[in-house]
Amino acid sequence: MQLLLDRIRRDGKIREGNVLKVDSFLNHQMDIRLFSSIGEEFKRRFKDENITKILTIEASGIGIACVTAQFFDVPVVFAKKQQTKNITGSVYTSKVESFTHGRIYDIIVSKDFLSADDRVLIIDDFLANGSALLGLIKLVKDAGAALVGAGIVIEKGFQPGGDLIRNQGVRVESLAIIDSMTESDIVFR
Amino acid sequence: MQLLLDRIRRDGKIREGNVLKVDSFLNHQMDIRLFSSIGEEFKRRFKDENITKILTIEASGIGIACVTAQFFDVPVVFAKKQQTKNITGSVYTSKVESFTHGRIYDIIVSKDFLSADDRVLIIDDFLANGSALLGLIKLVKDAGAALVGAGIVIEKGFQPGGDLIRNQGVRVESLAIIDSMTESDIVFR
Repeated sequence: MQLLLDRIRRDGKIREGNVLKVDSFLNHQMDIRLFSSIGEEFKRRFKDENITKILTIEASGIGIACVTAQFFDVPVVFAKKQQTKNITGSVYTSKVESFTHGRIYDIIVSKDFLSADDRVLIIDDFLANGSALLGLIKLVKDAGAALVGAGIVIEKGFQPGGDLIRNQGVRVESLAIIDSMTESDIVFR
Repeated sequence: MQLLLDRIRRDGKIREGNVLKVDSFLNHQMDIRLFSSIGEEFKRRFKDENITKILTIEASGIGIACVTAQFFDVPVVFAKKQQTKNITGSVYTSKVESFTHGRIYDIIVSKDFLSADDRVLIIDDFLANGSALLGLIKLVKDAGAALVGAGIVIEKGFQPGGDLIRNQGVRVESLAIIDSMTESDIVFR
């Protein structure tokens, strides 16, 4: 998706430890026009899949998921990162390791909002080690729902998550895949 | 906003401790068609304000803010609930007390994304004690930006936040204001 690649080149900032900062347009400030183009592209790639629900994870996946959902006319469910007292009844749960925050946390989705009748598209902003995506996939499987695939905005192709999850037979569509990056350049696949 | 009142009556669930669960359409599963109607209504109410940016807080404000932003054609910035190592440089910060989670946390916005040139509309899903909204208002003021007002989906009118903040001269537009609720009934203002 050329518009996205150009934007990453222009506004992405590379920091030590293979950190790509895209917080001016993707995950702190959010460029909603760009999100609309992203949503349209996910629709193009998954249009024949009869998707009934989009699943994402708080917080930075939510905006992209909601704008994308308009193109599919389906509800969004976001996995929450800890149990709160407002979530009652039974939940699907899995564990996710955050390399950014250096900890492991539980993610949960109420059983009311994922069922065996659903055909689920997972949407997230980043794919690197794949821990969040594996956690979301487990929620879909535990619900007995059909996993249509995952739509990712930026995949760090030099980290293992993408290969790991594609090798499990999951369709992963990443709009930008970064093969390598240095302080002065980003190489896209 | 009648569509919203009807939906709260139909699908809202009242739990002990004045908890209103709207997680089937607002803050866990999200009805994107309803969000679009909500965004349109916020646009109608704030259309003459030359808004340049929408500010919200993770996580459940993000979806509503992003769909609303499409009607204003402006970016969204969401306040983050804790400092992560991906946020570098200087930030605006304030403290928010969560009654749901029973703790106080810091919220932050990068100084790159709020400035004295901005005319800011704050969007959030709930207003009850007003702690989150007061925290967001402080961020806007610290940035020297103009605060146009706050668009709230559901205000618990029997809790003090709405009066407190309106008495500070802030324009608060709540699409549903609940004056009282019992297990069997909800009274809207």
